[in-house]
Amino acid sequence: MITLGENQYGKSRVRVMKVHRLPGRNELHDWTVELLLQGDFQSCFIDGDNSKILPTDTMKNTVYSLARGSSAACMEEFGEEIVAFLLKNNPQVTVARASISENTWDHLTAMGSPHPTTFVQSSAECQTTEVVAKRNEQMEVRSGLDNLVILKTAGSEFVGYIKDSLTTLPESTDRLFGTAVKAQWTYSVVFAAHISKSVQHTLYAMGEKALEHVPEISDIELTMPNKHCLLVDLSRFGQDNPNEIFVPIDEPHGYIEARIYRRK
Amino acid sequence: MITLGENQYGKSRVRVMKVHRLPGRNELHDWTVELLLQGDFQSCFIDGDNSKILPTDTMKNTVYSLARGSSAACMEEFGEEIVAFLLKNNPQVTVARASISENTWDHLTAMGSPHPTTFVQSSAECQTTEVVAKRNEQMEVRSGLDNLVILKTAGSEFVGYIKDSLTTLPESTDRLFGTAVKAQWTYSVVFAAHISKSVQHTLYAMGEKALEHVPEISDIELTMPNKHCLLVDLSRFGQDNPNEIFVPIDEPHGYIEARIYRRK
Amino acid sequence: MITLGENQYGKSRVRVMKVHRLPGRNELHDWTVELLLQGDFQSCFIDGDNSKILPTDTMKNTVYSLARGSSAACMEEFGEEIVAFLLKNNPQVTVARASISENTWDHLTAMGSPHPTTFVQSSAECQTTEVVAKRNEQMEVRSGLDNLVILKTAGSEFVGYIKDSLTTLPESTDRLFGTAVKAQWTYSVVFAAHISKSVQHTLYAMGEKALEHVPEISDIELTMPNKHCLLVDLSRFGQDNPNEIFVPIDEPHGYIEARIYRRK
Amino acid sequence: MITLGENQYGKSRVRVMKVHRLPGRNELHDWTVELLLQGDFQSCFIDGDNSKILPTDTMKNTVYSLARGSSAACMEEFGEEIVAFLLKNNPQVTVARASISENTWDHLTAMGSPHPTTFVQSSAECQTTEVVAKRNEQMEVRSGLDNLVILKTAGSEFVGYIKDSLTTLPESTDRLFGTAVKAQWTYSVVFAAHISKSVQHTLYAMGEKALEHVPEISDIELTMPNKHCLLVDLSRFGQDNPNEIFVPIDEPHGYIEARIYRRK
Repeated sequence: MITLGENQYGKSRVRVMKVHRLPGRNELHDWTVELLLQGDFQSCFIDGDNSKILPTDTMKNTVYSLARGSSAACMEEFGEEIVAFLLKNNPQVTVARASISENTWDHLTAMGSPHPTTFVQSSAECQTTEVVAKRNEQMEVRSGLDNLVILKTAGSEFVGYIKDSLTTLPESTDRLFGTAVKAQWTYSVVFAAHISKSVQHTLYAMGEKALEHVPEISDIELTMPNKHCLLVDLSRFGQDNPNEIFVPIDEPHGYIEARIYRRK
Repeated sequence: MITLGENQYGKSRVRVMKVHRLPGRNELHDWTVELLLQGDFQSCFIDGDNSKILPTDTMKNTVYSLARGSSAACMEEFGEEIVAFLLKNNPQVTVARASISENTWDHLTAMGSPHPTTFVQSSAECQTTEVVAKRNEQMEVRSGLDNLVILKTAGSEFVGYIKDSLTTLPESTDRLFGTAVKAQWTYSVVFAAHISKSVQHTLYAMGEKALEHVPEISDIELTMPNKHCLLVDLSRFGQDNPNEIFVPIDEPHGYIEARIYRRK
Repeated sequence: MITLGENQYGKSRVRVMKVHRLPGRNELHDWTVELLLQGDFQSCFIDGDNSKILPTDTMKNTVYSLARGSSAACMEEFGEEIVAFLLKNNPQVTVARASISENTWDHLTAMGSPHPTTFVQSSAECQTTEVVAKRNEQMEVRSGLDNLVILKTAGSEFVGYIKDSLTTLPESTDRLFGTAVKAQWTYSVVFAAHISKSVQHTLYAMGEKALEHVPEISDIELTMPNKHCLLVDLSRFGQDNPNEIFVPIDEPHGYIEARIYRRK
Repeated sequence: MITLGENQYGKSRVRVMKVHRLPGRNELHDWTVELLLQGDFQSCFIDGDNSKILPTDTMKNTVYSLARGSSAACMEEFGEEIVAFLLKNNPQVTVARASISENTWDHLTAMGSPHPTTFVQSSAECQTTEVVAKRNEQMEVRSGLDNLVILKTAGSEFVGYIKDSLTTLPESTDRLFGTAVKAQWTYSVVFAAHISKSVQHTLYAMGEKALEHVPEISDIELTMPNKHCLLVDLSRFGQDNPNEIFVPIDEPHGYIEARIYRRK
């Protein structure tokens, strides 16, 4: 018998920008929101009966309307407001999920001081949060960041790994190590001071430091591609290359992910 | 106590193109491979000990080398060869996963017939497979497609949904319905002939047809964004618009996903 | 003295989709339009006086409104209608330019025949046109295509080039030759049958054939990146590689462009 | 008679990263280079004779090799070295062009001070230069920046423009004004302090300030898309919206470009 399994639906890439017009200066929130609902939607899928469907267009309007009235100081609070609103008004919904990413803008420095109403997009990095509300359960909030692009030019090794007939990679005690961190919580000091034995080693050290320093964090997921920089062989042209000239490549790239948690 | 949780690592975006040089014509496979390993890697993360690490560079070489000797007729078989090889040669690995996507090339039509050694990239759609091998268990293979971009200009309705104070969407018995299907298995005839009551309704119908027709398929996951085409209000310019002039938009977009399975 | 030089302004990425609702079937145009104006706009730039500015928002509306009334059979004709309209209604404009690209959709094959109202995006290739109208001069129309991705697995050589102390590329009488053609007019038969001595050689042969066959074409511009496929060195693993296993790379890539014309 | 017209060829997206290993700290250059040559290449196009062709692979090697020996303090100087080298060693070349863009990296702040060997990608903005060398002529160098994303939340108007039957845009004395500047030289103070009457007005003011302040600059080209933020109509939900809640959109977008120069 053919049966509907897990399913969810909603609206992606709802962009909203909120200008806080304060005395003497403006502040800015630039959010991209995804809302997803789970619940009693079987009749919609199977019979084409839409009577329990909150249109995704209405979800979009919900973002705009709540943004206007909201006093949320951060996107975590705004996410909580949205999913609480959706659960409260839609008895057929059992799980509401809001994923928000924030583009960060800084006041532009003009004549040596920050201009009150002019902004510059400070980085390609973005802040993220995911708020999940299940009916009659406590909300879960996971915050993080995405696309923090960092690079070490010293203090990175990779030796002692398995060698077999398909190994061509030479060992290195001084390699470039670049990555684009996606994390729930991170602690960037670690990346600088730490002596890396491998990407895995650095990833764990970053997660461990975060858990040690911030008691509120119970677990961390980290994703770190290994964005390779290849040392160019210049001996073909009669030149040495003492770890100075590299070619960064996009593909292929290494990929490492792990969760680090506080065991009770 | 701080502890390492779930983790995996490997190589992404390993691109390999294989030319089969047959008598009278060539054939072409253009694959992008991701390999991921799980296993006993705790000492690597925590102590920086790499003795159990198969370098991701070696994984890349494995793809190239196996591609040369392989007689795989399709990427599912090639994926099985790779994960079997990785499991066999790496006792520390408990799960090996290969995800492959294939760009499709057709023989170019020249002088009215297919040219034996010249190809044209036929579509932005790609075929996908994911092969997962757990030690001492049967391999799992899930195949599918991604980015099949389709559009209905008739036979699509959306009425009878929830209306509330945030509703601005008018009901429609004749709307454009465009999507980019990501699926494990699909059956495109359904999309054309079916009268759509909603994206959910069409998604289920597509999955149901596939299960009815192909007894080998036990379950299907379908992801279908709703890529909106907005009817332009031309009444402002003294013109009518009988469902003819639309603006396709990228964001925001609706999003629906579900799994449909054969209940035993 | 500081002075305003060449300038133009307009609206980019105006997307419009037109459904032709014919008896028994629909047809579809999916266009992305850019409109640019040159003219007497000095006071706007220097004094902030907008009295001669046609808002780019109005240009967008012009696309929608003309699309509704238009009987244009192709995007070239539609581009001519728009620029003629803009010139006629804006005496301050001296040059109006419309650049249009068309996504191609095919009727989906269902039950063995094309379905009348269901479409599939057939290719990543797009058709392009640029229509330029200067006041009191004849319109210029240049049509073409973009992103036609093609590949030869035989009949491509590269020998006899300059060798110096920085040369590492070996000569080849049998290499893969892939490219993404951007052209005004092309003739794909040539790419298949021709024996390529270099990308330049093939580019010229394609342009020459087009000019020979189509007397209406007076000149052709062709842009052909050389999308490299690198032969993998498998000798490291005790394997040969008789021109079968390649790695396609995105960067760096070769780049060749030329104009071929009919000398009078 | 069919004839070869203007043509050029070369290598694109040659990425090179150079680590300057100084006492106590490293510095980093991350460049993407495009090299293009013009010259006597007719026999290559028409006859498939490659004897005058410097392979694009050798051009790539030239970038790597010169980077090693170079003492260039900036990418302008490095570009000059490359094109001079290519002209000197290739008598068949009449014009050599190097276009370089630089990703900017900052030392990561760790424990309150910049870490000597760890970097963070500071922005999506990049610096650009284009160096053109024609045989027996002085080199031309044009520098600039690309993708500087900025936004004003106050001090931006758009009134007094042409109104006609296709106008739907209301006048505004307080709108959001966002753009991604591509320029040869810019002076960001202007964007903050200036009262904008239109994008054109601001573009000219920015160029004029740059020319006034930097006598070495003789002309400036500025490209400024108008990245629209739409005010959301909340009156449908019984809410006002005093210029606070906006939807940023990617398409369509306005586009303005101009050159401002010093008249002799």
